[in-house]
Amino acid sequence: MDSGVCLLSLLVALSTLSHVLSEPILRLPSEKAISSDYCDSWRLAVETNNAGPWERVPANCVDFVAEYISGERYRRDCEVVGNLSLAFARSVRLVGDGRDAWVFDIDETLLSNVPYYEDIGFGFEIFNETSFDAWVNSAAAPALVPNLILYNELKELGFRIFLLTGRSEYQRNATEANLMLSGYRNWERLILRESYDKGKPAISYKSEKREELENEGYRIHGSSGDQWSDLWGYAVAARSFKLPNPMYYIP
Amino acid sequence: MDSGVCLLSLLVALSTLSHVLSEPILRLPSEKAISSDYCDSWRLAVETNNAGPWERVPANCVDFVAEYISGERYRRDCEVVGNLSLAFARSVRLVGDGRDAWVFDIDETLLSNVPYYEDIGFGFEIFNETSFDAWVNSAAAPALVPNLILYNELKELGFRIFLLTGRSEYQRNATEANLMLSGYRNWERLILRESYDKGKPAISYKSEKREELENEGYRIHGSSGDQWSDLWGYAVAARSFKLPNPMYYIP
Repeated sequence: MDSGVCLLSLLVALSTLSHVLSEPILRLPSEKAISSDYCDSWRLAVETNNAGPWERVPANCVDFVAEYISGERYRRDCEVVGNLSLAFARSVRLVGDGRDAWVFDIDETLLSNVPYYEDIGFGFEIFNETSFDAWVNSAAAPALVPNLILYNELKELGFRIFLLTGRSEYQRNATEANLMLSGYRNWERLILRESYDKGKPAISYKSEKREELENEGYRIHGSSGDQWSDLWGYAVAARSFKLPNPMYYIP
Repeated sequence: MDSGVCLLSLLVALSTLSHVLSEPILRLPSEKAISSDYCDSWRLAVETNNAGPWERVPANCVDFVAEYISGERYRRDCEVVGNLSLAFARSVRLVGDGRDAWVFDIDETLLSNVPYYEDIGFGFEIFNETSFDAWVNSAAAPALVPNLILYNELKELGFRIFLLTGRSEYQRNATEANLMLSGYRNWERLILRESYDKGKPAISYKSEKREELENEGYRIHGSSGDQWSDLWGYAVAARSFKLPNPMYYIP
């Protein structure tokens, strides 16, 4: 090899090197990056209820939502909510008369339907009652781990636990089986929609049921849910904890 | 140069190249990355009110908050909220009797105090009334641009605009001057705390004032604020829009 050829080879290698080094600095934001930036702001708007009612994840945010839900951020976001809920629960002075209550929603709160939503494209498809019912009947939803931990700690502290779900009375057996299989024990009551609750917006149905608990003498110190309709309305808890959910919206 | 030396030089260059290429893949998450992950979840917890009352930004999140506020994400998050607010406003069927209202908070909603908070370490210091009052008197806060755009569009659509702020009556002149200087015109009314409002939690004071507007016959279609205490309570707007603010919390 003569020195001219060698110099040329070195220059090619060095120019590749400098190309690699400079590329991330010079590269313009890709379309994916732009859309992911927007989707991050869209997600915040959903979590703060700024987005209002929405039917499906925007087409250009489906990949973002899939990545978020399947990745570390969703797990960590839920964990931080769980820790804040527990810190609050520990600060509550319980009366200890068996009327200190905490209300949990089920779907995307105690149980995770991510395996189901993974199969149907992470919120891009409009809600399909038939396929979701089949999934509920399979009783295969895993626990949302930070909330299983919270649930057990709350029981230790002496809270009575109420499960207030948009699922229907005919799904009681499958729901109980799923809760038991994923590690939940000894709740006070599981409240499901009766036939006369059908068609009520979740926010009304859940407020009514919380009011019934209050009328029975329960003090609802805390409430956990992934939808604002789990938490707002009337007879609201002293503190409400919103779990993240960018996959679907329930009014 | 003989071919042995040349080969060696090439190998060195290529090994540097492969080192550069492999480094980002092999590197373990740094302490900064771990803390920034946590802070991202903390920020979401603040925006959804899961964090409850807090006095100052956690020490290990001060850099994160500074970066967020000074960077593109805050600007974009505000822009998306502005766009969603406008989309809602356009969907409202206005009666047109001069009673269609929108309520805006001022600080971190119409006006940005970021230049002030930049100087005092982005929320790590506890609120200092004296230095903040001096800043208010300087009337130097710039407009929060997406909300200036929204404000003007709402006026075009025919909304009457009410400014409802935690600032005090004695700050009226400085506040009006600042609003004018930063581009705001023709609001219907600027409501500040009177001496008898002193000490009231913002959520009570603002609910009272909104109720007074309703009693005057105003329909509050929308409300924009960076604190939940701007938006919740009673006499709430048909739709509330929460602007991001991880710098401070007002009960």
